[in-house]
Parts: sequence; C-alpha cells; structure tokens
Amino acid sequence: MKNDSSARIVGSLRTWVSTAAPGTRLPSTRELVSRHRASPVTVQRALRTLTGEGLIEARPGVGTFVREARIARPADYGWQTAALRSPRSRIEPMPAALRSTPNDVIALHAGYPDAELLPARLVRAALTRAARGDAALTRSPVAGLPELQSWFARELGAATPAGITPPAPSDVIVLPGSQSGLSSIFRSLVAPGQPLLMESPTYWGAILAAQQAGVRVVPVPSGPTGPDPAELARAFEESGARVFYAQPNYANPTGAQWPVELHGQVLEVVRSYGAFVVEDDWAHDFGITTSATPVAAHDDAGHVVYLRSLTKSVSPSIRVAAVIARGPARERILADRGAESMYVSSLLQVAALEVVTQPGWRTHQRGLRDQLQSRRDLLASAVREHLPAAAVEQLPPGGLNLWVRLPDGTDVPRLVSDCERAGVVIASGAEWFPAEPAGPFIRLNYAGPNPARFGEGAQVIGAALARLVA
Amino acid sequence: MKNDSSARIVGSLRTWVSTAAPGTRLPSTRELVSRHRASPVTVQRALRTLTGEGLIEARPGVGTFVREARIARPADYGWQTAALRSPRSRIEPMPAALRSTPNDVIALHAGYPDAELLPARLVRAALTRAARGDAALTRSPVAGLPELQSWFARELGAATPAGITPPAPSDVIVLPGSQSGLSSIFRSLVAPGQPLLMESPTYWGAILAAQQAGVRVVPVPSGPTGPDPAELARAFEESGARVFYAQPNYANPTGAQWPVELHGQVLEVVRSYGAFVVEDDWAHDFGITTSATPVAAHDDAGHVVYLRSLTKSVSPSIRVAAVIARGPARERILADRGAESMYVSSLLQVAALEVVTQPGWRTHQRGLRDQLQSRRDLLASAVREHLPAAAVEQLPPGGLNLWVRLPDGTDVPRLVSDCERAGVVIASGAEWFPAEPAGPFIRLNYAGPNPARFGEGAQVIGAALARLVA
Repeated sequence: MKNDSSARIVGSLRTWVSTAAPGTRLPSTRELVSRHRASPVTVQRALRTLTGEGLIEARPGVGTFVREARIARPADYGWQTAALRSPRSRIEPMPAALRSTPNDVIALHAGYPDAELLPARLVRAALTRAARGDAALTRSPVAGLPELQSWFARELGAATPAGITPPAPSDVIVLPGSQSGLSSIFRSLVAPGQPLLMESPTYWGAILAAQQAGVRVVPVPSGPTGPDPAELARAFEESGARVFYAQPNYANPTGAQWPVELHGQVLEVVRSYGAFVVEDDWAHDFGITTSATPVAAHDDAGHVVYLRSLTKSVSPSIRVAAVIARGPARERILADRGAESMYVSSLLQVAALEVVTQPGWRTHQRGLRDQLQSRRDLLASAVREHLPAAAVEQLPPGGLNLWVRLPDGTDVPRLVSDCERAGVVIASGAEWFPAEPAGPFIRLNYAGPNPARFGEGAQVIGAALARLVA
Repeated sequence: MKNDSSARIVGSLRTWVSTAAPGTRLPSTRELVSRHRASPVTVQRALRTLTGEGLIEARPGVGTFVREARIARPADYGWQTAALRSPRSRIEPMPAALRSTPNDVIALHAGYPDAELLPARLVRAALTRAARGDAALTRSPVAGLPELQSWFARELGAATPAGITPPAPSDVIVLPGSQSGLSSIFRSLVAPGQPLLMESPTYWGAILAAQQAGVRVVPVPSGPTGPDPAELARAFEESGARVFYAQPNYANPTGAQWPVELHGQVLEVVRSYGAFVVEDDWAHDFGITTSATPVAAHDDAGHVVYLRSLTKSVSPSIRVAAVIARGPARERILADRGAESMYVSSLLQVAALEVVTQPGWRTHQRGLRDQLQSRRDLLASAVREHLPAAAVEQLPPGGLNLWVRLPDGTDVPRLVSDCERAGVVIASGAEWFPAEPAGPFIRLNYAGPNPARFGEGAQVIGAALARLVA
C-alpha cells in the first residue's frame, strides 16, 4: 500500500537525518526512488512529510537539505504554578486501556477491538464514497445529520415494546464519540459537588468524565447479575443523588448483563426517586451468547439517558456515537454539546450511516459474534489452565473482556509490571473502581491482536503470579 | 454525482410515503430505476436510507412496504425540573452564525466560508487517500498524530524570531475543532467563578465556552488597534484574573489586527501579572492585505496558549485544530482532553496534514486571498452605497467579516427580523459582546454564498434601516 511504503521511507530518512550535519544535501529523488524501490510520487510524499516536520527543507532548483537544528534552552514554567491554582479535581493520567504498545508484545490490556475484528472493507468503501459527496465540505447541524439521528432512534425503537412510545429522531444528539457524551451528560445532569451513583466496578472513562465534571461519585456494588435494587434505593436515599450511571449490557470490565427482570426493578427505583439512569450501551454490537437489550426501551418518561457508540464496532477513526434523551434533559445536553464542540464532522456521520445500513454490516456482525466467542473461550481456557489460583467469576455473554480475580493479597501493580517486563501487557483492575478496589483483579481483553498468543500470554501471567505468591 | 441522485430519490420517496397508507407496497426497484433514471445501486441506497429512517420496511421475497406509524402520546417531563436543579450557568441558545438557511436567501450571517472558497479537490483527494490507509482503522494518541503535531509546531516555529525557543511537537495537542480547545483551555486554566479577561467585542463561541466553564467574564474593550495595554493592566489588577482571551489577528467580529508593537506590550503586561494569554489565531489562513503574525511566536516562557484551527480553511468536515502550550498548563489541558474525548479521528488528522502539505495548498491560499479581497471590497462598497447612515469603522486586513456600526438608537433585533423577512439573513452584533453591546452593530460575512447578490443584500438592509429610522 502506498501509505506504508511512504511511511517506510520516512522512517529510514528520519534516521539518516538524525545523524547528518545540518545543511547536508539529501540524495536526489531519483536516487531515493531506486534505493527504496518506490514510485516518485511516494518518495515526494515522504519528503513532504519530513519537510512538514521541519527536519529537511527544499531549496528550489538546488536540492533538499537537512535543516539547521535550533537549540532549546531549559525553560522555567514555575510561574504557572501560581496562575493555575489548584485543579478543581485531579484528573488521573491515561489509563492502561489507551496505551499503545509495540507489535512484539502480547497486548491483553487494550480497550478497542483489533483491526481484524472491524468491517474494514465496508469502512474504506463508506469513507471513499463520503469523500466524493457533499459531506466532505459541509457542516452538520449541532444535533447531527437527520438521517443518522433517525437511524439511532430506529435502533432503540426496534427494541421498544408496544405501549411505550419509541424515541423520535429529534430526541437524538450525535456525538464525536461516547466519551464526549459522558462528559456532557454528567456536566448537564449533575452539578459540581453533587452526587452521582455509579456501578462499581465500572468503566474507567466514565470515572474520568465524572472527575472532570467535578461531581461526587457514590459507588453502588454491581456483580454478575447487576446491582441489587434495594442497595440502589439505599444509595439514592442516603446520597440525595438524582443520576445513576450503569452499563446493563456486557458491563466493562465484568461482562455482566442484567437479567431482564432487573430492568423493571431498576426503573421503578429510579422513578420513585425522580432520577435518571445514564445507560451506557457501549457493547451493543458485541453480544456473544445473548443480544443486548436496552433498559431505555422500557422508558418513555425521560428517565433513561441512553448512550450508544459506533466507534468501537465500526472503526476507532469513525468517532460517532449518540445520546438519546427526552425533555429538558435533552435540551441541556444539547446546549452543552453546542458549547463544547458545535457539531460533528458530516463526513464521519455519513460514513458511519453508510456502514451500518449496508447489507454487509449484518454479515459482519454475525462473523464478529463467532470470532468473539472463540477468542473469549480461547483466553478463558488459557487462564483456567495457566492461572489455576485465579477465578473468572463469569464467562461473559458479551463484551470484550475477562474479569479475573486473583488470590487475596496479590500485589497487582507488581504483577502488572512483572508481566510487562516479560512482554505481556495487562490492566490492573484498580482502574475500574471509583473508590478502593473490592479485591485484586486484572482485566484481560480478548479482542486484541494475535489470539494465537493468548496461551503464551496466560502462561507468562501464571508464571509471574506463581513467583509473586511463592 | 451518485450521492446527489440518491438524495433526490430519497426526497421524492419520502414525500410519496408521507401520503401513503401504512402497509402500501412501494414500486419495485426496476420501476424506480426507470422512473428516476438512476442505477439499481443508487435506488438501493435510497431505499436503505428510508429503511434506516423507519419509514419503509423490506419483507424479503415479497417487496418493500410503508411502515406502520406508531402514535406518540404527549409526554410529561415535569419531574425532570426537580432532578435537573438549576443549571450552573445558562448556556445561550445557538447563535446566528451557526444557523442553516434555505438556498434562496441572501446569507450574510454565517461563520464559515462558502464551499467555493475551500480547497475542494485537495480535500476529496486527501480523504480518499486516507480512507485507503491505516488511519481509517486505527486510533490516534491522545495528543494527536506525531506528524501533525510536528506540522503545527513548525507553523508557529517558522514565525519565531532568533533567540526565542520555538515550540516542540510535544507542546502540541491536536483537537477535534477549536471550540473544543476553548472549552478545555478555559476549564483547565480558570476555576469556576474565577475571572477571565476577554476582548470586547469578541467571538461568541469563546463567550459560550466561558459560560459553559462557569467562569466570570471580565470584558476588556478592544478596537481597530486592539486593546489598550494600560486598560488591560487595570483589568488584571482589579479582577485578579490570570487569563486573557484574545484574537490578535483579524479579530472576530471586527477584523482588527494588533499592530506589532502591541504584541510586546501585551506580553509585558501578561508577564507582570504572572498570567496567560489565550491567543485564538482562528483566521490565520484568512489574511487579505497583511499576514497573520502570532503573538505566541514571541513567547517561550509558557505565557501564550496558542490555538490554531484548520476547520474553517480546509473543510468544516475535517474538524482538526491544535493548541500549543508549555509547562504544567499543557499537562492540565491534555488531561482535560483525555477526559473529554480521548483522541481525535486519525483519518481526519491524516487528511488534514495531507491537504496542508500539498503544493496545491499554497496555490489555493493565494487564490483565497484574492477572492476574500474582492468579496470584502464588493460588500464594503455595497454597504457604503446603500447604508450611508452606517459606518464600517475599518476595512479589515483579513478575516471574513465586516463590522458595521448603525446609527445610535437603531433597534437592531427589529432590523435583523425585518431583513430576514425580506430574504436577507444578518447577525446582530449583540452576540459578540460578553456584556451589554457598546452600540448598535451588525456583522456581515463576506465569505458566504453568492457574492453576486451582495449589492442586493445591502440594498435590502439599507431600505429596512431607512424604514426603522424614519
């Protein structure tokens, strides 16, 4: 692929430039063409990249040269300490799930499905088509393109039983990714310092968004069958909270899916406290042995603020999600979105809609279900074999992760760093707890690269754990 | 173009469906092909769009039918009033500059350049190429793709004089549009309730972001030659503010460009108060008779937080901007970006970089300069001819707008609505004032569609103004 050979030339020239004296002349384009066996167009692209980076400069009619490096003085930004004052809330540094890792490690930490699980052909075709259309050069309304709003409303509407009014397209706000939705929802529905109930453990991104919004997180324990409604009611009662954040389908990290009877029970609690559920349906497209059934489908009184993303299932580069909310809550979230980012790229919206309305999308989803199942089973059996002291509480019916409990007293940070030194990257469970972890957990993602190495990965973790416990 | 004929069929079928009874069968694909003289692929696409919108449904082997409409009950969301509590700060409804208008009006209100001023060919080619590469399916680091960080650093570095350390690529944070940058910067640098100095008048989007961040805006008057440094010092002194938001080049709405000697004077004031300037270089690519010279180029002590966007000059669909900041301020902004949206679409980043590093980009910029100049002059002379009672304080050396002062006592909201009824959309100047407007102003954008109708537009405004004053 063109892009790849251009990147190869960039890499090679960057190394060359780093050891060359400023003012050194680069080999001619013709030489580079023959040396890298690439087309002149590809070589030109590589040279433009390096020019853009300020490493080389073209002198027209003369040639291309290594640029003069400017020497940086050490800077003192001490004065900023006073100007910045204390942060409203300390936002944690980036969590494990977002880390990039070299290709040769076994990566079980990531939060995103590997490229081989994405509908690559559909995505490229949809983007290429969108690049030719109006969307490439036009602005979207703040709430999103009407066709995409309709699609999101239809998806939830299809699950809505008779007697309940399905959401209207105008209830939908399209977002540049679901993280933006979490930030806007928390900011809009919970004032700074006010309480927000969250399942525990739960998605670190939601914990991060809650920190950013400056709200007070109140954890509600949640296990393989979701939260206990009586415990939830107690938390509402004690805290005075009006909002409960939850992932009823394939919760991250546990993979738990609420039994259907819990939907009604939670809605009853929420109604009786005049409160909202923020339902984060992040894994809607990642069902394995069941399908996702949104709680929001049973509410038409505006109690559920529903969040659905296409970023993980379509492509991480097509950052498109949506929030469905009704009443004044929707107005307040929309106003926040306007102030935060005004609108979402039309191109990405058109491409996302194109992907999910292609017949190939359903075919892809069926294949994905099978792939996730075999990956999940492969990793689970490797864990059972190589980590006999650990427990996978539940083989998750969907989602991307195994949630593994380690023997009491395990030094998890130490285990994580020992594994990393042995070439296996895993995530400490602590990142998924809004308060102290309920025990020593790790999260293992089975949607990452190279499932053929899952066994090897589990073996490394098992050996590291055995050394720690010994 | 394929997309257009599909949209045409969608429009025609949507009308047809709206009058058809539920369960009515649609004409066959073959009939639609012949009726609309479109390819079967195009017809199928149109049908998929309507299926996505829930208007029709396919019954495999039978045909496509108009769906049963579900009847919505009127909903009562009154309970939300208690749950939502009072908003932290009331965010204003969408301003004029974001409004979409029908094609037949004369639109002088918009904030974005018309599509004919965009590098359409470069944009489509860059997106098409990006769709084929890795970027279509991969995630970017939180701070952005290194190549694009380098480009933004280089752009500012090129303006940096000897003796000042130019910014490093690692000082750059790529953003999904500059509005997101304003939100993150204000949230990160100013605590809620703390003062933020802003030029007045200034960009409504910045006022909106300040409202969202819950900070207290302190206006600093700014005219055709920027703010008075003594006035700025007084504002810092009185308010205890540590941050000043400004647009030193082609300010929106006035088009004012600070004289070069003001750069040093403002920096001196800012340094003496241990404060930040947030420099919003929104119109960097829209110079007409001068070029933009960033204040940030004269600072390497982290006093200037510099914001540059490509959205307006490359394409509104390529939402890519960057903030350049140094020291702890940069860390705090980055943490906020992580919590707010995690990362920016790689595809859009790669496409943006591709556009601005093509030789065609420079050619486009030269042409744009000429076009903006003739549009500006055309509108300015039309205003002089048809609004003799109005004053254009300054023919702006860059930017997209004329800032027009009307006779004292003019009822501007009334004028705006009278003009709109006569088919000319303009923006009331009030939206650009953080507090009370300093006088009756309107903002006229000369980068909108159809400059051939500028004269007609000015005539309508002139007539409406004459009626009001009479």
